[in-house]
Amino acid sequence: MDAIIENRLIERLALGFTRAPHQLNATRESDAELIRLPGTDVVLALTTDGVVEEIEAGLYRDPYLIGWMTVMVNASDLAAVGAQPLGLLLNQTLKPDLDDRYLDRLQTGIRDACEACGLHVLGGDVNFSARLQMSATALGLIPDGRLLTRRGCQPGDRLFASAPLGLGSAFALQALVQRGADRAARPRGGGQPAGLEYRPAARLREGGLLRAHATCCMDTSDGVIPTLDELMRLNGTGFRVDAPLESILHAGAVQLTRAAGLPDWLLLAGPHGEFELLFTVPEAAGETFLAAARERDWRPLELGVVTANDGLELNGRRLDTARVRNLFTLVGGDVEAYVRELLALDGTLRPSPAPRYSGS
Amino acid sequence: MDAIIENRLIERLALGFTRAPHQLNATRESDAELIRLPGTDVVLALTTDGVVEEIEAGLYRDPYLIGWMTVMVNASDLAAVGAQPLGLLLNQTLKPDLDDRYLDRLQTGIRDACEACGLHVLGGDVNFSARLQMSATALGLIPDGRLLTRRGCQPGDRLFASAPLGLGSAFALQALVQRGADRAARPRGGGQPAGLEYRPAARLREGGLLRAHATCCMDTSDGVIPTLDELMRLNGTGFRVDAPLESILHAGAVQLTRAAGLPDWLLLAGPHGEFELLFTVPEAAGETFLAAARERDWRPLELGVVTANDGLELNGRRLDTARVRNLFTLVGGDVEAYVRELLALDGTLRPSPAPRYSGS
Repeated sequence: MDAIIENRLIERLALGFTRAPHQLNATRESDAELIRLPGTDVVLALTTDGVVEEIEAGLYRDPYLIGWMTVMVNASDLAAVGAQPLGLLLNQTLKPDLDDRYLDRLQTGIRDACEACGLHVLGGDVNFSARLQMSATALGLIPDGRLLTRRGCQPGDRLFASAPLGLGSAFALQALVQRGADRAARPRGGGQPAGLEYRPAARLREGGLLRAHATCCMDTSDGVIPTLDELMRLNGTGFRVDAPLESILHAGAVQLTRAAGLPDWLLLAGPHGEFELLFTVPEAAGETFLAAARERDWRPLELGVVTANDGLELNGRRLDTARVRNLFTLVGGDVEAYVRELLALDGTLRPSPAPRYSGS
Repeated sequence: MDAIIENRLIERLALGFTRAPHQLNATRESDAELIRLPGTDVVLALTTDGVVEEIEAGLYRDPYLIGWMTVMVNASDLAAVGAQPLGLLLNQTLKPDLDDRYLDRLQTGIRDACEACGLHVLGGDVNFSARLQMSATALGLIPDGRLLTRRGCQPGDRLFASAPLGLGSAFALQALVQRGADRAARPRGGGQPAGLEYRPAARLREGGLLRAHATCCMDTSDGVIPTLDELMRLNGTGFRVDAPLESILHAGAVQLTRAAGLPDWLLLAGPHGEFELLFTVPEAAGETFLAAARERDWRPLELGVVTANDGLELNGRRLDTARVRNLFTLVGGDVEAYVRELLALDGTLRPSPAPRYSGS
């Protein structure tokens, strides 16, 4: 498999750092770091994640959404290791001229997301810069020491998603369509454009259950295909997705994508994700798991199976997941070029009219 | 006492957040957040801090120093609560065009500081932006659950510093002098100017001892006077510093300050600090503490005593600590204006020749 640019960078940055003896996961092996406290049986989950590029690219404009996502990107990592959420530390780099209304919306987004996740703000740090940047660190507990990581699936395991997929890509596409329309017609206003609502909720309850049932788990913070690619690399397996795409995609996302003249599978490409969980369950334990999920009013979506050969087979077609995953970086973050290249990637897609997002 | 601008901001940002039931400290009450893990006796210390303004202002130019300080600002908070260091999560926002050599120096600074502190890098997050910004979150353990915070001193307690003070202010002053000289004479080169070396080492060993002896403790990350101001506010006390300034100040720092025609006490003003610990010990326990320190080859510097009336008396003169603390913000971060205002603050200082830092 081709190298992943992001993974190369992580390895480069971590070169020379020694791993902690009390750390239970290797680099990239789980969504949150798993630490056994020396001299105790307590296992902590710790994760840090920021909202930077989404603000710089203009994808997140509503301060409430920026605050909300600062919490959720971290809470979702706790969910993917099945941790009980404890608390959050905030790192806010504010612009010196931010007005009170903006600041209130930002902090309210943080507060509401924390309440939704059962996370308390433990503390934080504030700095000032010409660029607004937000990040946070979340802390959780692994109650009985049983670990859930990105590694552990076997060929034959069943592959699931926590809920319909594609909202992350659709939201980014919507911003692109909106930008095209704005360029064509009217000056861009402030705030988030109306349309598809994007407000992911970390799957903490579901993650807690998965820790007892799943063989591997990862959140789709970077989109579905990048997540599947990473799981394949770490497990030395492949995936076959048999479920009809329409049955596993978010209905509003599909509608928006088709209106833009784009094929459905682009909703799986990322790199902006929907923060659902992708996970695997052994074939033999599948029905027990599904019954436990139903008891909690949760209906996971079955996508397909883990395969012995590497690579992703998506509805009968093989997809170059490394290419998809590297593409956004390769085109320098140019969203229009990214969509063009994705279309070029799969010549077997139905011929579509010129994409309607350019607006010009 | 006058309100502190920074504290008002912290309170404003935290408005609406609920405190965690398992958190043992109130807002601002300790350098690191103290969390008792639910259902256990384990107390964690958690802190997050960034290096943002120092980079933007051009004070930190050497990538090694930036990496080093990203670790130390957090390790120093662990030291101030007497925590055993465990690990660190990094948040790096890199410029897309950073070259390999710069990145290597940055990561080497992080690695060396971690090794010096016994901290392991547990994980992290990388983003890209036009501005380099660094922050981290550090995790430590409070072994026996005995807490050391910023609160707890009583009038009569003895006031100490972990080592000579003033290097933080002197380093900032040196940058200012250098800038003046550069403007006058030659184009500014890259890297950190030669001269006073600034490479604080978090006082983790000392902090561990202090947890058994001290009644309050705080690091001088924002300078000495701001630290004393915060301790006075939280404890409802004052401080009398009797020690001759020369005996508690860093010799090289004094030399540099005098060469610039500035009075010694400006080395205590901040807002750039030296990351020493200020702490108090009950009068009756003072000799026991000093003996324990000597056993560890550590000679704390005695500054003075805790007083019942509020305010700081510095070598017989009362100083408006709130004014000093707010001043850098009030002058909009203009370092030259800041020094001018500090000089104006104390008209009783010896008349000095025009400060030599302007270079024009």
